[in-house]
Amino acid sequence: MWFTSDNAGPAHPALIDAISAANVGYRPSYGVDEQSLRVRDRIRELFDAPRAEVFLVSTGTASNVIALAAVCPPWGALFCHEHAHIEEDECGAPEFYTGGAKLTLVRGDHGRMDPGALRHAIAHTGRGGVHNVQRGAVSITQATELGAVYSPAQIAALTAIARDFALPVHMDGTRFANALSRTGGAPADMSWRAGVDVLSLGATKNGALAAEAIVLFEPERFEGKTWEMELRRKRGGHLFSKMRYVSAQMEAWLEGGRWLDLASRANAAADALASGLRGVDGVEFLHPPEANALFVAFPREMHRAAQAAGAHYYMWPFDQSLEGPGEEKLSARLVCNWATEPSDIDGFVRALRG
Amino acid sequence: MWFTSDNAGPAHPALIDAISAANVGYRPSYGVDEQSLRVRDRIRELFDAPRAEVFLVSTGTASNVIALAAVCPPWGALFCHEHAHIEEDECGAPEFYTGGAKLTLVRGDHGRMDPGALRHAIAHTGRGGVHNVQRGAVSITQATELGAVYSPAQIAALTAIARDFALPVHMDGTRFANALSRTGGAPADMSWRAGVDVLSLGATKNGALAAEAIVLFEPERFEGKTWEMELRRKRGGHLFSKMRYVSAQMEAWLEGGRWLDLASRANAAADALASGLRGVDGVEFLHPPEANALFVAFPREMHRAAQAAGAHYYMWPFDQSLEGPGEEKLSARLVCNWATEPSDIDGFVRALRG
Amino acid sequence: MWFTSDNAGPAHPALIDAISAANVGYRPSYGVDEQSLRVRDRIRELFDAPRAEVFLVSTGTASNVIALAAVCPPWGALFCHEHAHIEEDECGAPEFYTGGAKLTLVRGDHGRMDPGALRHAIAHTGRGGVHNVQRGAVSITQATELGAVYSPAQIAALTAIARDFALPVHMDGTRFANALSRTGGAPADMSWRAGVDVLSLGATKNGALAAEAIVLFEPERFEGKTWEMELRRKRGGHLFSKMRYVSAQMEAWLEGGRWLDLASRANAAADALASGLRGVDGVEFLHPPEANALFVAFPREMHRAAQAAGAHYYMWPFDQSLEGPGEEKLSARLVCNWATEPSDIDGFVRALRG
Amino acid sequence: MWFTSDNAGPAHPALIDAISAANVGYRPSYGVDEQSLRVRDRIRELFDAPRAEVFLVSTGTASNVIALAAVCPPWGALFCHEHAHIEEDECGAPEFYTGGAKLTLVRGDHGRMDPGALRHAIAHTGRGGVHNVQRGAVSITQATELGAVYSPAQIAALTAIARDFALPVHMDGTRFANALSRTGGAPADMSWRAGVDVLSLGATKNGALAAEAIVLFEPERFEGKTWEMELRRKRGGHLFSKMRYVSAQMEAWLEGGRWLDLASRANAAADALASGLRGVDGVEFLHPPEANALFVAFPREMHRAAQAAGAHYYMWPFDQSLEGPGEEKLSARLVCNWATEPSDIDGFVRALRG
Repeated sequence: MWFTSDNAGPAHPALIDAISAANVGYRPSYGVDEQSLRVRDRIRELFDAPRAEVFLVSTGTASNVIALAAVCPPWGALFCHEHAHIEEDECGAPEFYTGGAKLTLVRGDHGRMDPGALRHAIAHTGRGGVHNVQRGAVSITQATELGAVYSPAQIAALTAIARDFALPVHMDGTRFANALSRTGGAPADMSWRAGVDVLSLGATKNGALAAEAIVLFEPERFEGKTWEMELRRKRGGHLFSKMRYVSAQMEAWLEGGRWLDLASRANAAADALASGLRGVDGVEFLHPPEANALFVAFPREMHRAAQAAGAHYYMWPFDQSLEGPGEEKLSARLVCNWATEPSDIDGFVRALRG
Repeated sequence: MWFTSDNAGPAHPALIDAISAANVGYRPSYGVDEQSLRVRDRIRELFDAPRAEVFLVSTGTASNVIALAAVCPPWGALFCHEHAHIEEDECGAPEFYTGGAKLTLVRGDHGRMDPGALRHAIAHTGRGGVHNVQRGAVSITQATELGAVYSPAQIAALTAIARDFALPVHMDGTRFANALSRTGGAPADMSWRAGVDVLSLGATKNGALAAEAIVLFEPERFEGKTWEMELRRKRGGHLFSKMRYVSAQMEAWLEGGRWLDLASRANAAADALASGLRGVDGVEFLHPPEANALFVAFPREMHRAAQAAGAHYYMWPFDQSLEGPGEEKLSARLVCNWATEPSDIDGFVRALRG
Repeated sequence: MWFTSDNAGPAHPALIDAISAANVGYRPSYGVDEQSLRVRDRIRELFDAPRAEVFLVSTGTASNVIALAAVCPPWGALFCHEHAHIEEDECGAPEFYTGGAKLTLVRGDHGRMDPGALRHAIAHTGRGGVHNVQRGAVSITQATELGAVYSPAQIAALTAIARDFALPVHMDGTRFANALSRTGGAPADMSWRAGVDVLSLGATKNGALAAEAIVLFEPERFEGKTWEMELRRKRGGHLFSKMRYVSAQMEAWLEGGRWLDLASRANAAADALASGLRGVDGVEFLHPPEANALFVAFPREMHRAAQAAGAHYYMWPFDQSLEGPGEEKLSARLVCNWATEPSDIDGFVRALRG
Repeated sequence: MWFTSDNAGPAHPALIDAISAANVGYRPSYGVDEQSLRVRDRIRELFDAPRAEVFLVSTGTASNVIALAAVCPPWGALFCHEHAHIEEDECGAPEFYTGGAKLTLVRGDHGRMDPGALRHAIAHTGRGGVHNVQRGAVSITQATELGAVYSPAQIAALTAIARDFALPVHMDGTRFANALSRTGGAPADMSWRAGVDVLSLGATKNGALAAEAIVLFEPERFEGKTWEMELRRKRGGHLFSKMRYVSAQMEAWLEGGRWLDLASRANAAADALASGLRGVDGVEFLHPPEANALFVAFPREMHRAAQAAGAHYYMWPFDQSLEGPGEEKLSARLVCNWATEPSDIDGFVRALRG
């Protein structure tokens, strides 16, 4: 019963098969092989973005920060939700790669930036001229770190604000597939057509071993940035010599809609878990479970029971103690993945029921 | 006939099998799984270094620069050969990760730093006090970028100089296995017993898909640096959530001496190629072929013949043109790998023979 | 009638006389001249800190960020008030010099960090281990950016929290003299005896042309940091070749208690202005005027009258417009300096009275 | 008898008088005062560069590195002479401000870059594509660190090479006035008309207390860089609140040709010293004394005699010892400044004559 993260479960075997299949003979190094070019073309096609530039890397942090560093200067304010992954879980990688940009935090329910708060934050940045950091870029996390999903219209509302201030927009799409699987529609609707300039498209948390794509949709609007991203990827140590193994993953992940299929499985598992938990007295939902993660509070004694039954998950925040009065509620994060078994869901709900 | 680099060939299938085998069920993320701990223990054992700390990453550049940044301050001079990979082929990654250290170049034949030149470079750094960059660290590339191998005694001669100035020593061991396979002896003899403090041990160019280990041999002598390396790895975007797939590669690579077996195959292929080329009139060896790479010059017409026959390799330096008088000699790098076929060697030699 | 800032008024003529007096003959460059050593000794004496190391620079930003970079690592959280100068008015210089530390904002009335909020912020930083930025350092602004003054006991309450987490404490003492002139007591009481490790002692806003001192009180507790600060100063471009002219200012500023005399003049001017404004209907104090700056709100028509009468000051925040209903209140910052004339105070109050 | 550096002597009293004269009443802070604007206009006029942007700072290092960071990216190679000040005497400040650019060293006699060597260095940079640092910028030191002066034609020869590769050109003009005083001609001839894009114009070593100007001659060719330099200056802690005192120095320095008059005095003193030394047996000139610094070798016993007579100067390199055989020659740097007295020159020559 593992609900710690969507990166604790297995990769989809088809991706390993693809790695095996790619392991034949010789290939040009560093991403200029045919398979890597096919992946680029496939992403262009899927996103209806024929000029998009695609940069493959292997971690979500790398994907986020290479993109951000290319669009936000060292003296830029980088507007994001106060619980964004780039703020809370990357050990300052955005500051490192940008050369010191200032993450400027925006509030909003369930990890979604509130449009009014975003506008206020941007408007109030840089009014003191050279003394202040300048308006830099906006980063949107889809799905959010608290398990919610922006609708394309909600994204467009944020990007319209960015556009009012001529700011580029990044999307941390670590769970883009989970979100898209919920909203339906085309990938373009949830990205560039909604005003996103550069997307960090994550596969790792959704069935890959380690594969992420940075997608710059309209490079002609970002002069020099394609080459700059190449250089930043190399300089960050993220340009793989044997790129074929990353490309192979990505190709298999996108093949035949597998990426959305895997995401919908994870989402369905979360739905099933949510459904089960709704039937348990004392369980309280802290955020609407819109993607594949649940944030719930329930009595300490139920935590003790779940963990005794073999459940793995994180207390959220981390430092809540299992010791203390049983009836006090503690909060937890429960993440499902494409491989989550019904038996684990049932087992967890049963353990809480006692 | 691919001799472009040891990263153009396939990974050893056993490593992909190991990835498959690791793809079962749930594992703690971010490298605290049992397999990752086993890899650490195996490296400790192989290097006879029971307290060594091991940090897995997936590119050689990441391995080098995380190690270097931990031991060389932003105002440090980083002494390395003028043709070191960190100087020539990492797009300034060392400068980026260290926060601006100055690579200070040392000459020497065949990519080996000359001890006198190293001592002179160190001694002449920082004499102007606060106005100068300070003596920072020494980085040794084994095997060298020009295909030569340091003997343990040659390494010890360099590290003794570093020790005279109390400088830490890094080894870029991208081809450590190739070198060790040549020198024989224990891994410790070519690393910490020869005075190396931190090793970037490369598997990628020797049969892995993407796996490298940073080994800090005596962390007790580098207070706080174990944690700092953890943070620098994370902050660089190099901490894998699904570390099991990197660990699996590394475990299979080390298993039963496979790492040395693969290296000796690559070296033997280089020997065979060298032997064949020695029998070809007009071929000149620019550096002694001591590991798995050859640097040779031969007439332009022979280059044209080789390439017409399907040979892939880099002109070294890159910008020599195939156009021009046929008898003029052009220089090339020819790299063998564990999978290089005798038929490719024969074919190449035959093509040169015309 | 200039109340824009304490850096808009003149320097004290005695400091220029001291510069003139220092302009005789030859002196060793870069701060090893006798006058610079005298300044160091004088600061040691004044602060009862015989081992203190002193680094002179010429801007408050340089003074803050060189100190901060020496005590807070690139992956550190730097705890400060949400309206601290380092957060709002240095264009990201702290991020630049530290290599990307994250300013972590703490609330509190009148620019003073609330102890509970500070403890909460520190305690909640770094709980996710390597994924998070780590607890780095605490920076206290004295007097605050909103014109308030911490008592020594209030400082001690904050530094005790820092000590609980083994964090170093920096004080941005741009207006240290203004604060000390209010609290009385010895300089040590408001600095190291209250738990401050490194002080940025500002003279520029209090009668100097451009002179600031970084004071590291107990260098023996910060191994290697004295030399690191030297290097960071040089590397930042802040080591003056002709240091004598900075030292001369600092010596004259400290001479015979001039620094406190000038501060008390500025404070007294602020008191007189506050007193005058208290007698004006419609004037509202937003923060207690405890140092030399007032934050007040008054009707727009009174702003128009003041500015028509020749008053210079900043709207606070900047972007309030003079256009609109006269009775609406707008807020302003009014800063007095050592040279503020009673006639300007009277004139301002008179203008508001209409 | 001080010949250590041109920063060891006094500032010209007229500059202190100008500071005094500027110390009247209130002025807008941060360089938007009228005097600062007058300085900008004066520099525009002197350089016949009506659109030039001017940024005042107070150290030569700041002046160099703010300019360089604006024109050279983090992954850029910065081509300069192997003995350039930015390479040898700024403790890595260029690497710090640029975010890790690689200083790429070019040889040449007497501190002048050899055009062929420059072309070779540029041509051989970045041939490996994304793996290499890229061609960034060229920096020329005028007068050189070894006391030589480039003619305008020699500068043009270097900038033509830069132009062939579309690289921006910086001039470290710490001793621009000394050089111009030698070459004659208009300031424009030795700067933008010779192909220099941005000049670090130094006053500090030529009579100022601490004043330097960055001059960007044609900002319309460097889109966004004017604002970027403003931000980099602020972010580096180099934007003075009381800019009037820097502007006052610069205004007085430029007034009535004083800058060239002071430089010619320093040069004349160097000529007189050179002339005297030419008459001393055993004195050998290592570089042609074309500006205000001499590099000479003479027997150790003569060094002992000079220092016994009270001469101050640096051994060059620093670590030559006065102990040893008297007839062995040691090398020294002797720098004259605007205030060097004939009696000191005579005294020095006399001491060597014994």
